[in-house]
Amino acid sequence: MRKTNATERVQVVVVGAGIAGLNAARLLANKYSVKVLEARDRVGGRLQNHYFANGDSVDVGGQWVGPGQDRMYRLIETLGAKTWPLYDSGDNLLHLAGKLRRYRGTIPRINPIALADLGLAMARFETMARSLDPAAPWRHKKADKWDAVTLESWLQQNCRTQLARQLFAIGIGAVFAAEPAEISLLHALFYARSGNSLETLLAVTGGAQQDRVHGGTAGLCEAMAQQLGERVQVEAPVERVEQLPDGSLLVKHTRGAVQCERVIVAVPPNQALRIRFQPELPAWRDKLLQRMPAGSCIKCIARYDKPFWRDDRLSGQVASPAGPVRVTFDNSEQGKSSGLLMGFLEGDVARHYGSVSPAERREAVLDCFARYFGEAARNPLEYVDKDWSSEAWTRGCYAALMPPGSWTGGGQRLREANGAIHWAGTEFAVEWFGYMEGALESAERAAAEVELALQEQSGAGSPEPVDTEGKSQHV
Amino acid sequence: MRKTNATERVQVVVVGAGIAGLNAARLLANKYSVKVLEARDRVGGRLQNHYFANGDSVDVGGQWVGPGQDRMYRLIETLGAKTWPLYDSGDNLLHLAGKLRRYRGTIPRINPIALADLGLAMARFETMARSLDPAAPWRHKKADKWDAVTLESWLQQNCRTQLARQLFAIGIGAVFAAEPAEISLLHALFYARSGNSLETLLAVTGGAQQDRVHGGTAGLCEAMAQQLGERVQVEAPVERVEQLPDGSLLVKHTRGAVQCERVIVAVPPNQALRIRFQPELPAWRDKLLQRMPAGSCIKCIARYDKPFWRDDRLSGQVASPAGPVRVTFDNSEQGKSSGLLMGFLEGDVARHYGSVSPAERREAVLDCFARYFGEAARNPLEYVDKDWSSEAWTRGCYAALMPPGSWTGGGQRLREANGAIHWAGTEFAVEWFGYMEGALESAERAAAEVELALQEQSGAGSPEPVDTEGKSQHV
Repeated sequence: MRKTNATERVQVVVVGAGIAGLNAARLLANKYSVKVLEARDRVGGRLQNHYFANGDSVDVGGQWVGPGQDRMYRLIETLGAKTWPLYDSGDNLLHLAGKLRRYRGTIPRINPIALADLGLAMARFETMARSLDPAAPWRHKKADKWDAVTLESWLQQNCRTQLARQLFAIGIGAVFAAEPAEISLLHALFYARSGNSLETLLAVTGGAQQDRVHGGTAGLCEAMAQQLGERVQVEAPVERVEQLPDGSLLVKHTRGAVQCERVIVAVPPNQALRIRFQPELPAWRDKLLQRMPAGSCIKCIARYDKPFWRDDRLSGQVASPAGPVRVTFDNSEQGKSSGLLMGFLEGDVARHYGSVSPAERREAVLDCFARYFGEAARNPLEYVDKDWSSEAWTRGCYAALMPPGSWTGGGQRLREANGAIHWAGTEFAVEWFGYMEGALESAERAAAEVELALQEQSGAGSPEPVDTEGKSQHV
Repeated sequence: MRKTNATERVQVVVVGAGIAGLNAARLLANKYSVKVLEARDRVGGRLQNHYFANGDSVDVGGQWVGPGQDRMYRLIETLGAKTWPLYDSGDNLLHLAGKLRRYRGTIPRINPIALADLGLAMARFETMARSLDPAAPWRHKKADKWDAVTLESWLQQNCRTQLARQLFAIGIGAVFAAEPAEISLLHALFYARSGNSLETLLAVTGGAQQDRVHGGTAGLCEAMAQQLGERVQVEAPVERVEQLPDGSLLVKHTRGAVQCERVIVAVPPNQALRIRFQPELPAWRDKLLQRMPAGSCIKCIARYDKPFWRDDRLSGQVASPAGPVRVTFDNSEQGKSSGLLMGFLEGDVARHYGSVSPAERREAVLDCFARYFGEAARNPLEYVDKDWSSEAWTRGCYAALMPPGSWTGGGQRLREANGAIHWAGTEFAVEWFGYMEGALESAERAAAEVELALQEQSGAGSPEPVDTEGKSQHV
């Protein structure tokens, strides 16, 4: 059934045609021979379009760009794509104890004590985050202390009111697709710093949810793949990377093999763990990948004939401690008539609703939409949801998480190459870890490493061997 | 190079010839056709003998049995093996601030305030642990609270003196091969309860370090494998498990494939994650496996012409907050003349010493041995160490860990079969999770599940399909 190609030879193999892998390939393709191997039948990785019956599309994966994400705006411009600002007018809703309250901005109008409590906790968090170097969070003088506790522990100690804690946790859920118990305080602080500040990550206009891309973010990947042409091979899951006696690497996929000098692994950490390396990766790298599980997120979108909530001066943005959909956005595309409501199921809620029937999940989501926006929301023209944890080649979203101990117990070497094996993907970024911008940044670094190595190699002769340090010793 | 067998057909395939997989196969082999597929060229998994130049052997993996591990003692007897009590006479040593102090039992003689502090914290821990049901730790009324914090957080709040905290952490390191920051409080409590109590897990005589097995624990696996004969195939790493149209399963390994009705996966969680399933495992199972990284341990053993420390009325047992070897034991085999000192490098220390040269690691370990037992310890006849994190088919020891959020955010379904795919291994045990006894218990449960299913199947007709619930919905 499977067509087997003869072994190709290139200088660089990129594993994974997500935005990171494609960007790395694009940066190298003018100077070097490059092959991108992608497991699925499509490029884009965690970026994907869903096409509605009326021909409109919507991002069921990563979708936003915002100020400070310079590489993303540059890429969008280079590829001739256009952005529009997410609809952010009218009032937001806080759904609390069965009641809806209107508010504007990121902080809802709640009782003054809870509000002050939340404000103080956020200010404290931001001050701590600002004091970190995102290139090396483990170097902070309190890094060990902050990495030994969960974000939940910190919330318990720093929010005195339950309401402030709940609202903070909604923000955390929306930003990390995880429970505050799943991530270390250090990682939460690093992550915020990596994307400027928690406020930036939570904000729509002026923040990380500001702009959308016409044609979808997946369209950017398709455009890059088109430029790369036959360098991109889909339906070619990489199973093994083997070093040959001459020091070159043989990348074996299900349809053949590609021989090369350098490999850039640009798949999520949990996926990288499933590739066999020969010689094996050193203990520190494997253990670090084990200690970077992916977040849990189901993205749910309902299409209506129009964005009817706008008539009621509502932004489409809801925060609800009760959930199960704890945050929503108006995901309608500018220039299209349809109204799209988007909501996230995250963390434990995503894990729960990932295990029920599609019908039950749909009902639970639309029930939330109806509670927030009235009965009209209960019967959309179309409904789609995407559980990234059920996708064999992703297995979680938005990004990998660092539980306590990972950053200070191995994370120091996260971005380091293993000999001729280099690492890209949003989890390997210094700035905007977890975002498309971070994926681009990590790809620039990996491409630069490869370029330097290939230049040195062409001068020096034999390639650098795969790092096999730290094997057991029988003396 | 590789011999390819035609597809065999059996009723049950067991993946992994560790003590769990072999026990499951042994329990089923009289009634059903069974095949055990093992990736390595040996059976035993995390149990392995090292043979010294003089012909003596030593366990470089799991080695102890103790009271309450009834299945283990029964297996040892059944297989005709013999145990001996670990040498536990004389004084233990506490190495503190560069000085050695002698003591007896598990609690060192330290200043009365730190001692009381440690005693109170341990008593509090034991009381909490006793209140858990090891079959369902997530059902405890405080489960969510305990699973939201690290054990380190609890130690910070419950040990007021640094010394008590350090000594508690030494015990945790020795029991979990992890830092207290890596595991959730709930997991630590569950683990202690699963093996009776923390005191049991820390103790030598009367506890989990009481007895050793002549011929090594790996000898038990070899004996089981011998009984199973050609049912056990080594050097056959399982890469894929595919469901065929008739509902049976095709287990593909590097040398061929075996068709069967039921599969028992009996490899560590991080290894199970690397097997491809078709149809794919549901999101909840994959995510749970992602959230169960393995501990980090390097076991280090030096052989001397005799156990010279005994002449000085020393037990060979040391506790040292400074380390890097924080605990040692007299690992000499009863009836042999050699003296063996064994020390563990664990958690962050193991990760560090897993990345240095074998010579540097050896020097650091022997430097500790010399500090504890005098200069005679610096120059052993032989030295061996084993970093289980560097082993491709194990990638960590002793067992998988539950970081915060895993037990309450998916762990509820840990032991549940996925259709015709059943789970065994010490991580799937109710009692003695992390111990050989737990591996045997999990194998009994998995074998009983398979037996029941095969009985029902022979009555009913078509086999149960692999569970594929919770896929994304495009409506």
